[in-house]
Amino acid sequence: MSKQNLTLLTDFYELTMMQGHYNNKNNDTVVFDMFYRDNPCDSGYAICAGLEQVIEYIENLRFKEDDIEYLRSLKIFDEDFLSYLKGFSFTGDIYAVPEGTVVFPTVPLVKVVAPIMEAQLIEAALLNFINHQSLIATKASRVVYAAGGAPVMEFGLRRAQGPDAGIYGARAAVVGGCAATSNVLAGKLFDIPVRGTHAHSWVMSFENELEAFRAYANAYPDDCLLLVDTYDTLNSGVPNAIKVLSELKQKGHKPVGIRLDSGDLAYLSKQARKMLDEAGLEDVKIFASGDLDENVISDLRYQGAKIDVWGVGTKLITSEDKPSLGCVYKLAAVEKDGVMEPKIKLSDNIWKMTNPGMKKVVRLYDKHTDKALADLIMLDDEKLNENEPLTIFDPIETWKRKTLRNFYYKELLQPVIVHGELVYKLPKLGEIREYANKQLDTLWDEYKRLHNPHIYKVDLSDKLYELRKTMLNSLKVDGNGA
Amino acid sequence: MSKQNLTLLTDFYELTMMQGHYNNKNNDTVVFDMFYRDNPCDSGYAICAGLEQVIEYIENLRFKEDDIEYLRSLKIFDEDFLSYLKGFSFTGDIYAVPEGTVVFPTVPLVKVVAPIMEAQLIEAALLNFINHQSLIATKASRVVYAAGGAPVMEFGLRRAQGPDAGIYGARAAVVGGCAATSNVLAGKLFDIPVRGTHAHSWVMSFENELEAFRAYANAYPDDCLLLVDTYDTLNSGVPNAIKVLSELKQKGHKPVGIRLDSGDLAYLSKQARKMLDEAGLEDVKIFASGDLDENVISDLRYQGAKIDVWGVGTKLITSEDKPSLGCVYKLAAVEKDGVMEPKIKLSDNIWKMTNPGMKKVVRLYDKHTDKALADLIMLDDEKLNENEPLTIFDPIETWKRKTLRNFYYKELLQPVIVHGELVYKLPKLGEIREYANKQLDTLWDEYKRLHNPHIYKVDLSDKLYELRKTMLNSLKVDGNGA
Repeated sequence: MSKQNLTLLTDFYELTMMQGHYNNKNNDTVVFDMFYRDNPCDSGYAICAGLEQVIEYIENLRFKEDDIEYLRSLKIFDEDFLSYLKGFSFTGDIYAVPEGTVVFPTVPLVKVVAPIMEAQLIEAALLNFINHQSLIATKASRVVYAAGGAPVMEFGLRRAQGPDAGIYGARAAVVGGCAATSNVLAGKLFDIPVRGTHAHSWVMSFENELEAFRAYANAYPDDCLLLVDTYDTLNSGVPNAIKVLSELKQKGHKPVGIRLDSGDLAYLSKQARKMLDEAGLEDVKIFASGDLDENVISDLRYQGAKIDVWGVGTKLITSEDKPSLGCVYKLAAVEKDGVMEPKIKLSDNIWKMTNPGMKKVVRLYDKHTDKALADLIMLDDEKLNENEPLTIFDPIETWKRKTLRNFYYKELLQPVIVHGELVYKLPKLGEIREYANKQLDTLWDEYKRLHNPHIYKVDLSDKLYELRKTMLNSLKVDGNGA
Repeated sequence: MSKQNLTLLTDFYELTMMQGHYNNKNNDTVVFDMFYRDNPCDSGYAICAGLEQVIEYIENLRFKEDDIEYLRSLKIFDEDFLSYLKGFSFTGDIYAVPEGTVVFPTVPLVKVVAPIMEAQLIEAALLNFINHQSLIATKASRVVYAAGGAPVMEFGLRRAQGPDAGIYGARAAVVGGCAATSNVLAGKLFDIPVRGTHAHSWVMSFENELEAFRAYANAYPDDCLLLVDTYDTLNSGVPNAIKVLSELKQKGHKPVGIRLDSGDLAYLSKQARKMLDEAGLEDVKIFASGDLDENVISDLRYQGAKIDVWGVGTKLITSEDKPSLGCVYKLAAVEKDGVMEPKIKLSDNIWKMTNPGMKKVVRLYDKHTDKALADLIMLDDEKLNENEPLTIFDPIETWKRKTLRNFYYKELLQPVIVHGELVYKLPKLGEIREYANKQLDTLWDEYKRLHNPHIYKVDLSDKLYELRKTMLNSLKVDGNGA
């Protein structure tokens, strides 16, 4: 498959800053952290996704002749700098949490350690991939949670924000737990099961509904799923479907189901279930689609809707109630004479201050339950002793303290690219889905509640907290970032 | 530029229906209408966009060997049908409103007249392109309207829903009136002006803010725009910027401006304007960015914010308050023995009923003001006489009637592809932007109000109204779509 070269998928200021650094002969190694500040959609967590596309992008990062030509036409870049771009490749390090990892606000999901010109160029594309796919994976995991074990299929292609949003959105939906997609190209690219039924237009293209159903049953006797709401669900669609599915059954086939796509899905599914059961079609499943999301699914289930499989489209593929994840990419350190000098960005809002320095993140687990207790952001050279009690505290409301005993920890950030070379084994999408599922198992249900979930603790180590405090105070005094 | 083949960018059910029709030896010519039912974001209109991508897609619609291989692996398609797909190309007709046209609910934006197998295959991709780009063009036009003549730049790449959402979103934003983008690849592909300044990381990578500003001024003396909120906007950023921009001015350069990216933009811009003016920098412009949309811009302007240029990111590129346009693609007619038989989809909701038959749309204009009066959806063979009074009525609230005199009309749908061949001259993006701007001029301001706008009339011709009524009544009687 030929792909578009995404090297110019960057913000213009990255290139002007690069040239600025180039002319200043500054290509110091720096550390950038990517993290977000708020969980989307009222969620208690997010699911990280998009790393595979980050790797693909980094490996293909080359300015082609026509890219250089275009940049030259802008009349702002010198020939010297354009020559540098011609030979450009990424030579730095990228650390990231594996796709499917459950993550929380302020935790670095990606850490880039690279010469500043390289680290700048890749900012916008990395944010784009991780923001998009993590958002959709998170939304999908909420929908899957609401469905409580019933399969969820992703049906959003036609309302997605462009082809990639459909393709990578389908991928991310699987990371979040979806079982299948309607999107054939996504199915091909990522080996996702593809599913579907037929459209209203199938029914309308025949003289009547019964004839349309018979023709579909004839074409797919062992895969027959009939859409029953083209004219009148309970008076026409379901009775005609029962007729045709019963005929299939008599011929020895196993009919799959019916699909409801409009009307009151609670009422219609209960009535349809009754009618199917009375006709001896207890095995026939009821699929539902139409403007669904986690809230509607949860409400319908609460009302006893008899729905076996959910098809979720627009509101999943766009994450309708919050269509962006706000990951940012912030400078945390600059190497001067071989030493990493920590950097901080001030803000009027304590929540928007950044965490300085080269850092790592550990997740603390309870030894007895294997449930996650908290995340701790630490300086890279700090050590943690699992055999000693550990007191953690909220970095803003510092009086909130807790002492942990009987814990173990895991580091979240993994080396992915080192000196420009891939050192990470990419899991298959099915493995990522499985991993995300296990990750969710380590969270207490209180964190997974659809609304107003318990807030998971992300704390700073004593040393990082002190460094940040000292830097804030010194910046406040001289006020110009000395 | 090499592009991904999008032939498999379709919903799985399109392919299963195609095979169903193939096996039934049914490839009747059909008519599909694409339209939406609700304007997004509380808008009184939408701006249609995405047609260029539709054309590109249709022209490249070919199943490659690996596509066939993949479909074969699904074990649901016969070799006969796969052979048919190998030779597949689009042979039908596509009519569409030109990009940049102001459009309204229920008006067909695209009409496909093609053999049913072809018309089905392209459904999902066409909806994807038109839904996405029309949504963003509409959102952009609202933001541009709110800015009241001040330039708006699109800055959303990092939060867009994947690369295409950034690339085609930038294109659509220009259709809607944006003046520039930060996205370099979109700039290259569509010849959009690219703009930017520098990031907080630029400032933080230097020993202090003043040094960072001087270095940037040195690199771009004639293009110098300084970001002033890294540490403390009014106590550090603006004073340092004034120092550096004044130095540039003394050296004979024309400094561009400063950018505010956080804090209270009304207060900060007024203070910064005063400080700049007092320093003799009256020509230096104030750029603002940071979580902006049409509502925030309108509020800030109401409060007298001194902002000359707006940079709008996340909320524009995702259309945050309504991230999807709900275009649907509905069967309107099937050709039987050379005659187009109208088709209709029932619904409990009168608003969701479709309009049957092969149709056209005319926009009625006032001869004196050249303002649009109403749209009229008619059967294709109907004629309209501009010299006779015309009484139009609301198709739901039929007592709402209005008689027009002194009007003229234009047909909205243009032939784009006929017998599979492109017959349409694609305008350049700049021309589309200009056309959209003129289209908006034909709308009274009442329709362009950001919230609670006046509702534009879209009516049905008497003949279409009667056809629909007759079909609804006959379907209600026999209830199974005969």
